[in-house]
Amino acid sequence: MYRIGVDLGGTNIAVGLVNDDMKIQVKKSLPTGATRPAEEIVADIATLCRMVCDEAGISLSDVAGIGIASPGIANHDDGVVEYANNLPFRKLPIAKMLSELTGVEKVKIENDANAAAWGEAVAGAAKGTKNSVMITLGTGVGGGIIIDNKVYSGFNYAGGELGHIVIEVDGAPCSCGRKGCWEAYSSATALIRMTQEKIDECRATGRSTIMTDQPKVSGRTACDAMRAGDAAGKEVYDKYIKYLASGLATIINIFQPEVISLGGGVSNEGQSLIDSLLPIVRAEQYGGGVVPLTDIRIATLGNDAGIIGAAMLN
Amino acid sequence: MYRIGVDLGGTNIAVGLVNDDMKIQVKKSLPTGATRPAEEIVADIATLCRMVCDEAGISLSDVAGIGIASPGIANHDDGVVEYANNLPFRKLPIAKMLSELTGVEKVKIENDANAAAWGEAVAGAAKGTKNSVMITLGTGVGGGIIIDNKVYSGFNYAGGELGHIVIEVDGAPCSCGRKGCWEAYSSATALIRMTQEKIDECRATGRSTIMTDQPKVSGRTACDAMRAGDAAGKEVYDKYIKYLASGLATIINIFQPEVISLGGGVSNEGQSLIDSLLPIVRAEQYGGGVVPLTDIRIATLGNDAGIIGAAMLN
Repeated sequence: MYRIGVDLGGTNIAVGLVNDDMKIQVKKSLPTGATRPAEEIVADIATLCRMVCDEAGISLSDVAGIGIASPGIANHDDGVVEYANNLPFRKLPIAKMLSELTGVEKVKIENDANAAAWGEAVAGAAKGTKNSVMITLGTGVGGGIIIDNKVYSGFNYAGGELGHIVIEVDGAPCSCGRKGCWEAYSSATALIRMTQEKIDECRATGRSTIMTDQPKVSGRTACDAMRAGDAAGKEVYDKYIKYLASGLATIINIFQPEVISLGGGVSNEGQSLIDSLLPIVRAEQYGGGVVPLTDIRIATLGNDAGIIGAAMLN
Repeated sequence: MYRIGVDLGGTNIAVGLVNDDMKIQVKKSLPTGATRPAEEIVADIATLCRMVCDEAGISLSDVAGIGIASPGIANHDDGVVEYANNLPFRKLPIAKMLSELTGVEKVKIENDANAAAWGEAVAGAAKGTKNSVMITLGTGVGGGIIIDNKVYSGFNYAGGELGHIVIEVDGAPCSCGRKGCWEAYSSATALIRMTQEKIDECRATGRSTIMTDQPKVSGRTACDAMRAGDAAGKEVYDKYIKYLASGLATIINIFQPEVISLGGGVSNEGQSLIDSLLPIVRAEQYGGGVVPLTDIRIATLGNDAGIIGAAMLN
């Protein structure tokens, strides 16, 4: 049986043909052209669905269902994107539109971060669990909640915004308008900001750091410097880990999921990231020494989590 | 049909006979004697179950089921209290014990805050909803999460600790050992602390406030002073509301429940509390102007929420 997963982003539309082993067999993409009318974007999604089938030598009638991972508020009961910040979608009945364009009866939708969490839950780091949470540490901090083998997004489909829990009242400004959101401390963007602040401080005080040797500050600058024995780099890394660990302990105190999976650019640090986080998380969370504890793992599906999760909505 | 609800606290055991209308028909209580062996405490629960039946002129065989709201980590699948901080309970198979003592086959258990949330969900402020959250603003800040008409407490039954989400990294010390928990800013205890701090500040600076006229500082001191036009009282109240609203916006961004109900001593402020909170919560939460919004309500069952919620586990 084949399923199609659509990962609709502000920049690109990626569509994958997913087989019974929950692997992507063919993947194609096109630029989103986010300023175009919604109808044109949906038409391109349909074209990509045809393209992946053609390449696999099957027809759309062989596809059991299509899933769309969309930005914004995705009403997964009605198949309507209520709103998306970076796309011209307002109450867009995207499931019905794509079903008509492709002839595939079953088209499901989900918010992109939720779809990625579902992908990790069925085929990735949280496979085999009933309750898991995925945190994506990228430009922002995304969250997806799986409860009882289902995506949980609240009665209005707008829940799971785990990056927008305030961890510091009146703290750093967040892109959402609040101050002190977890995202403003634990995204790759925040790590870069903290790194730049430390570099500026070192320059102003004449303190030595190899971080000033880099032509451009990235999310890896502080980690790389720390590994090379740079004290200022370690200070940035420790500060970042402290905030990230605090948010993770909070997520555990709320959800006590079997697994939290960490995705996004920062998760490329791999097991050393987990090793840095665990002692702080374990000290701050509930349940230690009494009940089994949440496992924190690096997500395994990478950029394919959205496609696989969307496909597996069917 | 009759059900029995047991609200087991560190100070008292309260047992109620609950009728088909989800009202308590008879209620009896005994001191917990929390330092006694667990067996004696459970025996007293059984005695109270018999007493409420006797008073109603029924027998225990007429009871469809018993529910116990217990402090600590309550494994609602196995009927075992894994751990309770203020009672001598370690892996106590309390459901089986009470079933044997009473002859009532069905005995269910739940954590006390979760049971109260369930009570409000089935018979109180969140009646008729599938997804709701209850926050209890008392000595601490308790939380209970209802998802899809079931209590959610994670894979190890230790979740829903909504008072122990950090809203200020390195902030005020919390009874749980973390720093900056919501409980340390939004409990009645925290409100009293903030009030005392403001009184001390007024005394030290010679600033006038009617809050110094009170013989004893309570959770109402600042509110009462504010209503009487006292500026220092208003400062305390506004600060308290700001932290409480921040946590509520966070809960909404995570869960987007149909209803959040507020219980505990602070909720006696009633609708004026909600009116103070709403403008801040609405400005900080996701979904405004796009989807239906979470209703914030005062809990309606008061101290009976635990008994009714426990009874209605059956």
